[in-house]
Amino acid sequence: MRDAYVIGAGQTAFGAMPAESYRSLFGTALARAVESVPGEFDRETVDEAVVGTLGVGGRQLGLSAPAATEHAGLGGIPCSRIENACAASGYAVRQAVQAVRSGMADVVLAGGVEVMSDTSSDVTKYWLGVSGETEWERLTGTTFAGVYAQMASAYLDKYGATGEDLSRVAVKNHANGANNPKAHLSFECSLEDAADAPIVADPLNLYHCCPTSDGAAAVLVASEDVAEEYSDDPVRVAGVGAASDRVGLFQREAYTAIPASERAAGRAYDRAGVGPGDVDFAEVHDCFAIAELLAYEDLGFCDRGEAPRLLAEGVTDPDGDLPVNPSGGLKSKGHPIGATGAGQVVEAFEQLTGQAGERQIPGATRGLTHNVGGSGGAAVVHILERESEVAR
Amino acid sequence: MRDAYVIGAGQTAFGAMPAESYRSLFGTALARAVESVPGEFDRETVDEAVVGTLGVGGRQLGLSAPAATEHAGLGGIPCSRIENACAASGYAVRQAVQAVRSGMADVVLAGGVEVMSDTSSDVTKYWLGVSGETEWERLTGTTFAGVYAQMASAYLDKYGATGEDLSRVAVKNHANGANNPKAHLSFECSLEDAADAPIVADPLNLYHCCPTSDGAAAVLVASEDVAEEYSDDPVRVAGVGAASDRVGLFQREAYTAIPASERAAGRAYDRAGVGPGDVDFAEVHDCFAIAELLAYEDLGFCDRGEAPRLLAEGVTDPDGDLPVNPSGGLKSKGHPIGATGAGQVVEAFEQLTGQAGERQIPGATRGLTHNVGGSGGAAVVHILERESEVAR
Repeated sequence: MRDAYVIGAGQTAFGAMPAESYRSLFGTALARAVESVPGEFDRETVDEAVVGTLGVGGRQLGLSAPAATEHAGLGGIPCSRIENACAASGYAVRQAVQAVRSGMADVVLAGGVEVMSDTSSDVTKYWLGVSGETEWERLTGTTFAGVYAQMASAYLDKYGATGEDLSRVAVKNHANGANNPKAHLSFECSLEDAADAPIVADPLNLYHCCPTSDGAAAVLVASEDVAEEYSDDPVRVAGVGAASDRVGLFQREAYTAIPASERAAGRAYDRAGVGPGDVDFAEVHDCFAIAELLAYEDLGFCDRGEAPRLLAEGVTDPDGDLPVNPSGGLKSKGHPIGATGAGQVVEAFEQLTGQAGERQIPGATRGLTHNVGGSGGAAVVHILERESEVAR
Repeated sequence: MRDAYVIGAGQTAFGAMPAESYRSLFGTALARAVESVPGEFDRETVDEAVVGTLGVGGRQLGLSAPAATEHAGLGGIPCSRIENACAASGYAVRQAVQAVRSGMADVVLAGGVEVMSDTSSDVTKYWLGVSGETEWERLTGTTFAGVYAQMASAYLDKYGATGEDLSRVAVKNHANGANNPKAHLSFECSLEDAADAPIVADPLNLYHCCPTSDGAAAVLVASEDVAEEYSDDPVRVAGVGAASDRVGLFQREAYTAIPASERAAGRAYDRAGVGPGDVDFAEVHDCFAIAELLAYEDLGFCDRGEAPRLLAEGVTDPDGDLPVNPSGGLKSKGHPIGATGAGQVVEAFEQLTGQAGERQIPGATRGLTHNVGGSGGAAVVHILERESEVAR
């Protein structure tokens, strides 16, 4: 089966944008992805589109994919919405890879979009809650922060970690996001700021939670047969892995890990023929601070219980051995649910093509993206590499 | 790229089933698909799942795919929800074909599910409405029946067709559905019954509209590399075609055709290397009577304006040259939104493997399924054939 390449990727800023709609945001993201293609590229070249969105607010719950693509000037092509809660557009990228590998399409747009800032907090709470298990989590009153708070409590208890370990995630990611012109919360925070924030769901405080954002992201995936027409040095999708799990946390085999992430990463590493030590940077799903710590362990960056040490020692800082979330992550860059997974791939594309500006990781040739749906009912991992720089 | 085959397919009955949930229905459909595989087949063989659902009633709006598959005993595999309104699971089957052709999976479950009968009529109206264009159709008061009524009005006006032409769709499909133990409305109706029914949205009356149903369907798609392990004579997916269009009818290039259907069919015929005259039967998307007439023309079964004649002459009757909707179609078999497209493939599988009982079309070797999202914002067509019987 033929390989798939990312030939272009772009996104809107993430943030609260009351003047925008899901359609305008999606159109902007596509326009930026098209601009990012090194060679001549006409959007009419796109054979197919996959749009990830949860549909927060219920704006266009049916046919939101054709509704978004028609506005973006992609008339008539096969397109569909994919939904896996917060992993919607990570899965959209994966589906684009399948479409290209299947021979049924040469260039596929994988994108995502969400508008979250114009609804009331009750509506937002509802729409976040739907990514939990309905009968036993949402309808019994558990908020989405509450689900991750249970994971955080279990982790702190099991490994003797502290609130400060959680706060360090915020400090690092805000420092990174301050260098990202597309970030929602693009300010730095101190360890004291993070530690003193009001509690959202104990032990998680405000700085341990990502914001709810508006935004869109778009990734252009092309087959090896045509990628060279658009780029001398496209980014290869070296590995893809996905997995699911019980939707309800209480039915999961572990509270101190996200097993779907571990399985998804294992598959992606296998397909790419690499391991965690071969990755130059990673964008991981830090919807809550505990999620970034779990990701270090689920993705094999360190042993179980070692994530706080990895973070505290600066290994995942931009100048560390394995920078994590150079974009600012969900915490600082923002988390427009359906756009997040594709947005991670946008960051990886910019890093791998040397276009990440002040966030640039020197010599980045292989990156990993990690996108989680709900509290771990779904996960998807991509390994992307700049082929020209990789010894194969 | 390797070919894809349907090795098994099954569904629940369609109807009002207050004791069932989306999970129990999906599990039953999968169990029946597994039972239908001729050889030994363990559901643990399934590599991946794609679940089509609109999510009517908002039961599990996020992560409904893992929620359905976990209950069906498919733990941990990659799975995602696909949504294209009423074409959700037609697209799920297409995505399964892509997954198999991509080499990333050998056996993929494409299914669909919807529970519609336990909500109030206002809730149902809302959830049907979301498949129209939100700003200019749903929010301005146009019901979904109202959208198709506009198409019916335009068609009757343009071609001098009559309400009786619409009613004949109901008479044929109810006669077919009366032979289908899985049909929701499994009774016959006379032309008088159909003509005298109360108006829903002029010119469409009650017999010109499909019911809202509960139900689930499941299709097992396998690669050519493994299909023979499970079946000596699997059903080949000879052609797949999909297309999108403007979601709002008022922005469409035609009211008297569904251009997305025409484009999707064109692609499917091209890929299969056949034409409309090579098809032995078809399951088409008759959500409203006008939709079946348009389908005849969009799929190339006859020229524009000729559909009423085709129907009246009995060409699409079970003993005609091109039987359409031998299952009873959406009109009589029922229309549980997310399950409909996969349910069409279930019927095609049963026809092609000689298991359609009293509905069996003698010698059926090639069938077409046609699934429409909304009023034509999306469409997907599959051409399936019993390879052993087809001269290639």
